[in-house]
Amino acid sequence: MKESYDLIVIGSGPAGQKAAIQAAKIQKKVAIIERGRDIGGVAVHTGTIPSKTLRTAVMYLSGYDQRGLYGKSYRLKKQLTMEDLMQRVAITIHQETEVMSDQLRRNSVDVLEGTASFIDAHLIQLEDRQGKKVQYNAKKVLLATGTRPRRPDGVPFDGEVIMDSDDILSLKKIPKSMTVIGAGVIGVEYASIFSALDIKVTLIDARACMMRFMDREITDELTHMLRDRGVTMRLGESIQKVERENDRAIITLESGKRIASDVVMYAAGRIGCTTSLNLAKAGLASDKSHRIEVNKYYQTKVKHIYAAGDLIGFPSLASTSMEQGRLAARHAFGLSLSSRPDLFPFGVYAVPEMSMVGKTEEELTEQKIPYEVGIARLKETARGHIMGLQEGMLKLLFSLETKKLLGVHVLGEDATELVHIGQVAFALGGDLDFFIENVFNYPTLAEAYKIAALDASNRMVV
Amino acid sequence: MKESYDLIVIGSGPAGQKAAIQAAKIQKKVAIIERGRDIGGVAVHTGTIPSKTLRTAVMYLSGYDQRGLYGKSYRLKKQLTMEDLMQRVAITIHQETEVMSDQLRRNSVDVLEGTASFIDAHLIQLEDRQGKKVQYNAKKVLLATGTRPRRPDGVPFDGEVIMDSDDILSLKKIPKSMTVIGAGVIGVEYASIFSALDIKVTLIDARACMMRFMDREITDELTHMLRDRGVTMRLGESIQKVERENDRAIITLESGKRIASDVVMYAAGRIGCTTSLNLAKAGLASDKSHRIEVNKYYQTKVKHIYAAGDLIGFPSLASTSMEQGRLAARHAFGLSLSSRPDLFPFGVYAVPEMSMVGKTEEELTEQKIPYEVGIARLKETARGHIMGLQEGMLKLLFSLETKKLLGVHVLGEDATELVHIGQVAFALGGDLDFFIENVFNYPTLAEAYKIAALDASNRMVV
Repeated sequence: MKESYDLIVIGSGPAGQKAAIQAAKIQKKVAIIERGRDIGGVAVHTGTIPSKTLRTAVMYLSGYDQRGLYGKSYRLKKQLTMEDLMQRVAITIHQETEVMSDQLRRNSVDVLEGTASFIDAHLIQLEDRQGKKVQYNAKKVLLATGTRPRRPDGVPFDGEVIMDSDDILSLKKIPKSMTVIGAGVIGVEYASIFSALDIKVTLIDARACMMRFMDREITDELTHMLRDRGVTMRLGESIQKVERENDRAIITLESGKRIASDVVMYAAGRIGCTTSLNLAKAGLASDKSHRIEVNKYYQTKVKHIYAAGDLIGFPSLASTSMEQGRLAARHAFGLSLSSRPDLFPFGVYAVPEMSMVGKTEEELTEQKIPYEVGIARLKETARGHIMGLQEGMLKLLFSLETKKLLGVHVLGEDATELVHIGQVAFALGGDLDFFIENVFNYPTLAEAYKIAALDASNRMVV
Repeated sequence: MKESYDLIVIGSGPAGQKAAIQAAKIQKKVAIIERGRDIGGVAVHTGTIPSKTLRTAVMYLSGYDQRGLYGKSYRLKKQLTMEDLMQRVAITIHQETEVMSDQLRRNSVDVLEGTASFIDAHLIQLEDRQGKKVQYNAKKVLLATGTRPRRPDGVPFDGEVIMDSDDILSLKKIPKSMTVIGAGVIGVEYASIFSALDIKVTLIDARACMMRFMDREITDELTHMLRDRGVTMRLGESIQKVERENDRAIITLESGKRIASDVVMYAAGRIGCTTSLNLAKAGLASDKSHRIEVNKYYQTKVKHIYAAGDLIGFPSLASTSMEQGRLAARHAFGLSLSSRPDLFPFGVYAVPEMSMVGKTEEELTEQKIPYEVGIARLKETARGHIMGLQEGMLKLLFSLETKKLLGVHVLGEDATELVHIGQVAFALGGDLDFFIENVFNYPTLAEAYKIAALDASNRMVV
């Protein structure tokens, strides 16, 4: 007889893990299937964790985070190598997979290795590396197989000079010049990280502005900073062709411009990992980006099959994927859902970091919600002086009618941490007066909240 | 005719400044009197700002903050000098005084230089450095003259080997050994900062534990860390004598132990700066620590004379002093007061930082308020792995009855920033479920709030 599970989760990234643990916590029998050598998905192995670890090493070893104190030409280590930068990556990946394996084990989740595919909507076949096949029954299924970089036909990827965002972590040496194609989160993160290493970076995107979900003033400010570091911005420009020429790549734009660089990183789009799932057997299909459509409960059109994480599209962040996985499992087993997607923070681990929660100015304007802006520059805080900060801002948006917080936008060091002070206030109904009257530790960057609130208050006086 | 002010503030530290600005904002005529060369008080000139700037330089230049990544024996700069450490201090002090002067100027506050004393309860005499005397009438007065280090008679201060906490910033070279007398906030901050420089530090206090307003588990953890760095703890030990012997100091304890060190920093107690005020003329007197007693509106027994800041005692933090000054000015001019002193955070800028808001376990136990604890170790977060954190914890205390947050205690890098996430939730009534369900950016240290809440939740299950 085939073994039966209450829930089979396919994919062990953030969405899959949290779904499995949620179901296990209410005594469901759960298996999680992973095709890679280790659990964790791209978040741990090629995405979030490696890029953030690389970013941390770049910030320190390049001396970038100390240039406000020791001058713009300060460099901590003159001859940086990729080994210097990557030495922590393997250690961090190992630590993360340990923590995750341990969590799954403690919650009695079965971890099954191999490639999963549907036999029918309730029957899943697992094929291991030796080709051995086993079938399992599943009352509920969660698809959390994530995405991989899109590799369009016309681009001659070679993994050395013309790379995708997975290849980039296996760079052998630090290039002198790099062209990043795609000004989404991944493209902007890598472009800004590499530019902090004094690499000549060019950023290309066919769209006229980067990361359109972000507040425009924040991305404008980032654009200014990137240009200040010598990044060439080619937004609103389409690519005609990408070619390799000896040890370098030549990109020709539709406008006729030609860009030569040691390395090209192609980061324009990702596609869902659905090819081997045999979706049709379950009565499902993926869209043209191989992604799967779900309703607000994360159900596919086959109601007992859920999907979560990068596989369902925007925002494709580890943090939101975790929450989607948890919510999908709760819905699958009839638990209450109390999710507030409007409270999800977005974090971009560029140099500098960016993070937001709530609405952007553009959204509020479009929705005709009257608001006032309050801005604090991090370099105007006492801690900013101590840290020698040259850049960074906090922008708060308050309702003109209720004075409630509507949006929090942070650019600068530790933006992904700082945003949570505003997020909690946003969630719990904090208003302008709360921030004005609140006492913050001195000196902290957190004081920027008070400064921004006072700024908004001053603007509101008529 | 003598010039008249609605409010004369004596002392331009954090309390005085915020009081002056608050009064000016409602169109009162305000003067602030400062006896030093520049405005800012000890917070800017000898206390908060210089010590935090020194701390930042120590953390970076010693390599301390990278030892989790590069090993315990990692040192960024082998031969550190006091100049290396102090190079930023003057710049930062200058920036702070500029910002403050500018703020006072924009608010049309008159800044008067000289020493103030009472002629009577409404008449204040200002004597400048040339001995010229002018008198001013004041409808209301705020005393915000702060404190200076206590220098007991038996201790032979010489500013070279036997120093107080003001002298320490003029150290000529980095000593090999240092004894810090007094395990209050100042003593603990300097002891921990200097121990990060591989200086052999001994910390002495007659009281059996350090900083008793803090949660005991946090100070226990700090004690462990300090010992791990080679700090010798002599708590609960009284000093018999302090002597200079050639280029070093010898301290003899009541227990007979003798401690030799290159430098002694005496940081046991501070006294109010009231000597030159001529308090008696106003019908006031200070206590034995030269401090001034106030009611909950910061009024002295002469109702139109207020006092705020370090001068009124605990907690003597720049952040709370600012709030006290603001509140005193509001009360003086009949504005509403909506202060929540229970929401004031405490920040200790030791190595590592500590911060808290709300109640400690000890207070809750004494008040018989049932609670449960949730703990997260920062090194268990993904960002902790990336940063190579070895230490640090977040402890949340929740009511067993209402599940509301009762206390937040943080130890570790950026504790003074991180605490505000909990502070906002505490202020706005966040509970256990809020933290469990909230989505945090990944990877962040802020995730520790979710981990700690889950920990508390697991403990609550019976």
